[in-house]
Amino acid sequence: MNVAMALDLGGTKVEAALVRADGSVVEGTRSRAATGDAAAVDRGAAERAIEQVVRHCMAAPEWGAVSAAGIGSAGPVDLAAGAIAPINLPSLRGFGIVDFVQGLTGLERVVLRLDGTCIAMAEAWLGAARGVRNALVMVVSTGVGGGLVSDGRLVAGASGNAGHIGQLVVDRVEGPAAGATVEGIASGPSTVRWAQSMGWRGASGEDLARDYRAGAPIAMDAVRRSARAVGLGLVNAATLLDLEIAVIGGGFSFVADRYPDLVAAAVREHAVNGYAADLKVVRAQLGGDAPLIGAAALVHRGIG
Amino acid sequence: MNVAMALDLGGTKVEAALVRADGSVVEGTRSRAATGDAAAVDRGAAERAIEQVVRHCMAAPEWGAVSAAGIGSAGPVDLAAGAIAPINLPSLRGFGIVDFVQGLTGLERVVLRLDGTCIAMAEAWLGAARGVRNALVMVVSTGVGGGLVSDGRLVAGASGNAGHIGQLVVDRVEGPAAGATVEGIASGPSTVRWAQSMGWRGASGEDLARDYRAGAPIAMDAVRRSARAVGLGLVNAATLLDLEIAVIGGGFSFVADRYPDLVAAAVREHAVNGYAADLKVVRAQLGGDAPLIGAAALVHRGIG
Repeated sequence: MNVAMALDLGGTKVEAALVRADGSVVEGTRSRAATGDAAAVDRGAAERAIEQVVRHCMAAPEWGAVSAAGIGSAGPVDLAAGAIAPINLPSLRGFGIVDFVQGLTGLERVVLRLDGTCIAMAEAWLGAARGVRNALVMVVSTGVGGGLVSDGRLVAGASGNAGHIGQLVVDRVEGPAAGATVEGIASGPSTVRWAQSMGWRGASGEDLARDYRAGAPIAMDAVRRSARAVGLGLVNAATLLDLEIAVIGGGFSFVADRYPDLVAAAVREHAVNGYAADLKVVRAQLGGDAPLIGAAALVHRGIG
Repeated sequence: MNVAMALDLGGTKVEAALVRADGSVVEGTRSRAATGDAAAVDRGAAERAIEQVVRHCMAAPEWGAVSAAGIGSAGPVDLAAGAIAPINLPSLRGFGIVDFVQGLTGLERVVLRLDGTCIAMAEAWLGAARGVRNALVMVVSTGVGGGLVSDGRLVAGASGNAGHIGQLVVDRVEGPAAGATVEGIASGPSTVRWAQSMGWRGASGEDLARDYRAGAPIAMDAVRRSARAVGLGLVNAATLLDLEIAVIGGGFSFVADRYPDLVAAAVREHAVNGYAADLKVVRAQLGGDAPLIGAAALVHRGIG
């Protein structure tokens, strides 16, 4: 059976696994290594982290069935160069990850895409966007990112960076633009900071979830503020691309059971055009497996 | 030679012409009829306006060479139903324009798209977006609209409304969301109203152009404010779709020779991601012919 090596490189960890053509992970092949701190400033440390999880895959008995590798990476990426420049991993700016993985594995076919693209690919393949021709799949977590399916095709864009919904500007730009973006307002850390600035005493997204459930006013306002910024980003995406569905995953989206409903309400309230106001907002179905499943889908499903 | 009938339906006029496969208009076939005022509230008047320009085409000697018709319409549209619901023509809400044109002409193949999509198609075929795989083509005029080319394909979206950049939200929503949209800030009428609210004494976009050239401070601020809102819309479009180029047409874009440069400067200033900051902003090349040329392209070039 055809097996893909899937690699997911992010700002805090790199993860790899062997994934079968039905999307299942080959038992015992999944591993992770930290990429934060040292690896963020030391390319050698970052390379060793990648090498460690790749070699773990290569040690599996199933390695012989591996035909190709799919890589999802934190952005921005440069597909034409096979290189990446993850904002949170300065050491890997301009890193030719495709060549690096080819060199390690001897695999000829190594396909790179933005991590958000991979998550969209995964949800379109086996998750909440199955069969949907126009969808945005996004993650609300430490950062906010995503990927796009438009007219039934995964969108890459000129250099592979389509789907970066976190950097949409949705509020008045009064200082640096980043403060007025979806990510700058809606991410977990941004929301916690805002709540603290309003006098809330908690320290984390988990604290916020607890206080939201308890009905604490600042916590409730903070969660609504996050959902509203995500909703405004989705108003823009749905208006521009005439989307049917938005799929939301990521740890911070669990801050409230109703988070997708709060987002949908913001979309309905702020969309000028009816087709955008009708956007459906649902939870992701694949959770933490999505990046690896999506990276494997680059091999198993193609990238069209 | 293969000839297409092209029809462009807008809020103030409907226009038709026969267009050859090289994009040239057959002499004497182009005509227009008003759709404002009476037609906006009386469907019979609107139908008669459409019928008038279609029959003018049908009276041409070249009519025998016509294989199909392409229609560009003010939005929103509903491609699956072959129907339209132009905001500025309430009488035509739910109007089955494809059936209507088929009935008038006897043509079997009648292709409908959003007018913004047609303009994008035209600039991608014969204008400023030729050969570009990721482009947004837009019009800044009484309204603000556009169309998209993504990964080399014209984007339709779920119901055909992709490209509506005028309804992107780019400022703080404090009243109705429409006031915080690209169109709500940057259109000709919006810009004139803002300048008047600041004490400017002119009455039109032409007055504003004159006073901008003369260096009148309020006129200059008003034009910059318009360009900035367009720039913020393009930041969002370029961030989401990783675009290479934005093409700007429409009468109000001529309010200043430097208008595209002012827009590009706003993009550079406000884009968080480098690939979006690098967006090129250029003037449209086809001017007032673009909607008809694009409608003809639906026939001559296909819609993929």
